[in-house]
Amino acid sequence: MEIPRSHPRAESLRIREALKKGFEEGLVVEQGLMAHGRGEAFDYLLGEKTIPLAADAIKIAAAALLLADKPVISVNGNVAVLTPKEVVDLAEAAGAKIEVNLFYRTPQREKAIEKRLRSAGAREVLGVDPSATAELPGLESLRRKVDQKGILVADVVLVPLEDGDRTETLRRLGKTVITIDLNPLSRTAQTASVTIVDNLVRAMPLLIKEVNRLRGEKPDLLRKTVEQFDNRVNLGKCISYIAERLMHISKSTGKMSDNSNGEQ
Amino acid sequence: MEIPRSHPRAESLRIREALKKGFEEGLVVEQGLMAHGRGEAFDYLLGEKTIPLAADAIKIAAAALLLADKPVISVNGNVAVLTPKEVVDLAEAAGAKIEVNLFYRTPQREKAIEKRLRSAGAREVLGVDPSATAELPGLESLRRKVDQKGILVADVVLVPLEDGDRTETLRRLGKTVITIDLNPLSRTAQTASVTIVDNLVRAMPLLIKEVNRLRGEKPDLLRKTVEQFDNRVNLGKCISYIAERLMHISKSTGKMSDNSNGEQ
Repeated sequence: MEIPRSHPRAESLRIREALKKGFEEGLVVEQGLMAHGRGEAFDYLLGEKTIPLAADAIKIAAAALLLADKPVISVNGNVAVLTPKEVVDLAEAAGAKIEVNLFYRTPQREKAIEKRLRSAGAREVLGVDPSATAELPGLESLRRKVDQKGILVADVVLVPLEDGDRTETLRRLGKTVITIDLNPLSRTAQTASVTIVDNLVRAMPLLIKEVNRLRGEKPDLLRKTVEQFDNRVNLGKCISYIAERLMHISKSTGKMSDNSNGEQ
Repeated sequence: MEIPRSHPRAESLRIREALKKGFEEGLVVEQGLMAHGRGEAFDYLLGEKTIPLAADAIKIAAAALLLADKPVISVNGNVAVLTPKEVVDLAEAAGAKIEVNLFYRTPQREKAIEKRLRSAGAREVLGVDPSATAELPGLESLRRKVDQKGILVADVVLVPLEDGDRTETLRRLGKTVITIDLNPLSRTAQTASVTIVDNLVRAMPLLIKEVNRLRGEKPDLLRKTVEQFDNRVNLGKCISYIAERLMHISKSTGKMSDNSNGEQ
């Protein structure tokens, strides 16, 4: 489907089309399409831009990645479709490994995602059958299956667009979890060490830029920056931000912008 | 997939599974799955219950349906999957016709949706190929194709889970449009004559109940009730409701409830 550039929601429609294509190609599952819709709604409430609170969290996330001994970027179907190149670039910039980790795990899906990442330039992709032989204790879903060279031994894990159960498990295992989640109220957002409340497609390039910018900094300084950050406080402010924006809208015209919600 | 009843999000997961099945059966499209996700997010913000403002709008919608000469219920894939029986019951209670109307229209999809509605007890289903021969002027999408016995000549149209373009077109043609949309900011919500900001699966049974309750009332009284209603005011209050709820959350724990946002 051709989307005219002039369409007020062109970017949002382009992303929907990309996910639909990713679904047809076997990378994305039905649940991933619905999860994307949830994200879209929260993005809409944020004004579809990176708010200063997200920029703050991105800085902390970059510092945490640079401080890590064994950072890993966890990738699911939606991430592989939306930001494959950015995953590869971030892994390079931060010296991180890339690991596929899926709730709805099948060998075909893992392989399709691996292929997409390799096309984007990835030289190593962990977690793909048969290498996901380790298990995270206390996690029931197939997300428990991890690579013993990756998430199992990682100290910092970036888990964009994740599920709450796994974030909780990773935290319980003492790992620093960075997430990118548009819903500041989700269990993932609330459980992570650092939550970037932003759209993946906007946050990833900024995160790469920030890693490159902070690379020269002294570890002590980075450590201090990370220690001063309170994720719960930042999340509370994100929720207030949305609330105030809605309050403002309800007091003005009651209308936000053009949103054709529900072409079916 | 079996969902344990004890799961904190069992109802929400059950609905997701139903839509996934509807997708596999050809009733629902990818865009419908994403649209459902958007709805889920707004439902979450409402507290996943019918708020009093929605109950008010349901009463007005019931009165408008009872006052109509030619009411029509427009059905898309998501509606056919989520509330087929309720569509049939409401049509019966309100003396309304049922018409299939799709953004992504194919003969197979129309027929699958018709079949679902007939299984639920519908005796007549309009808008299915080759009967959707009329066209709504000024609408580009395939939603313009309507049945000359249905939407074309209807005075009141219930369009749950719709797109903004069509709602605008129907309004411009002088029709009363009732919508059920969880997003009070959407163009559909903002353009409709009566917007029920509620989950379809909760609102439809209440709407049926209200139609049955009001059936005995004098038309004059019903007319007065409808005339006193200001949809924009009601929508503004819905937006405030969400804003206040978020404000309250941000001031308390910052945590809303258990929401596993993003099982992929």
